[in-house]
Amino acid sequence: MGMPFELNTMIVTKGREKRVEENLFQLEKEGYRLYPIDIPIDVRKTIESDTSGTAVIKKVEWQNSSTSITYQLISLNSTN
Amino acid sequence: MGMPFELNTMIVTKGREKRVEENLFQLEKEGYRLYPIDIPIDVRKTIESDTSGTAVIKKVEWQNSSTSITYQLISLNSTN
Amino acid sequence: MGMPFELNTMIVTKGREKRVEENLFQLEKEGYRLYPIDIPIDVRKTIESDTSGTAVIKKVEWQNSSTSITYQLISLNSTN
Amino acid sequence: MGMPFELNTMIVTKGREKRVEENLFQLEKEGYRLYPIDIPIDVRKTIESDTSGTAVIKKVEWQNSSTSITYQLISLNSTN
Repeated sequence: MGMPFELNTMIVTKGREKRVEENLFQLEKEGYRLYPIDIPIDVRKTIESDTSGTAVIKKVEWQNSSTSITYQLISLNSTN
Repeated sequence: MGMPFELNTMIVTKGREKRVEENLFQLEKEGYRLYPIDIPIDVRKTIESDTSGTAVIKKVEWQNSSTSITYQLISLNSTN
Repeated sequence: MGMPFELNTMIVTKGREKRVEENLFQLEKEGYRLYPIDIPIDVRKTIESDTSGTAVIKKVEWQNSSTSITYQLISLNSTN
Repeated sequence: MGMPFELNTMIVTKGREKRVEENLFQLEKEGYRLYPIDIPIDVRKTIESDTSGTAVIKKVEWQNSSTSITYQLISLNSTN
């Protein structure tokens, strides 16, 4: 009767994010994941990679064993 | 930098649910609330009232400091 | 970088609870589990069994991939 | 019947941590707070201050409307 969750403290895109408009992106992840919403968190391409920027999650949706987040990129790390 | 939410173990409708179709209802609640999804939970009109039925939440949405749940009523307590 | 946990809405003892004193029990569960604290929840022997009573969790501890809860039994269902 | 929680993604000590041994610290926070356990997170003195290091939480305890965490400091930012 328990419900499995994963606590996530950063956004790991794996390059699968979709641009909704300008700085707004949508990302779908497997399983039910708890993200902090409305506060700045790190965005990374993979778990091992460096921070690629900072974002604020504006919307979280749980349905059919997957989690969809909509986030606004508020700063970008240009490291080249 | 903390994010407040509320852990909810039942659905308290306060009569504000909207029927989407047949046994499917949609309910909006203030603040971010964590509900168990995909497992049967109690439905009550108020916190103090008796169970009015059992439902399974199919979808949870967090946005703009409010929580929207879509749930399927799977049994009704007829207590009259 | 995610942290798995399980949202639990009731106490399933599987007969493994240990009496600490009078109505106070301690139960160890595998993995990290999020329980509602300070509010009445169902106690069952197995997931399928009927409610055996109502308890209030007074303390939750997470350590070494296991969860320890201390709960006070506030009512017992005598169904015989 | 809801239970208020705060999702925390970093440790903010406000200088109130107590050294248990060597790199192991204990910190008490008001209210029930959900922290990621067993994974590296930032440690800061205040929300606004820079990271002072990285730690791994080894134990979380919820009781009497307060949260106690035990964490191991795994790296220190010496910024002077």
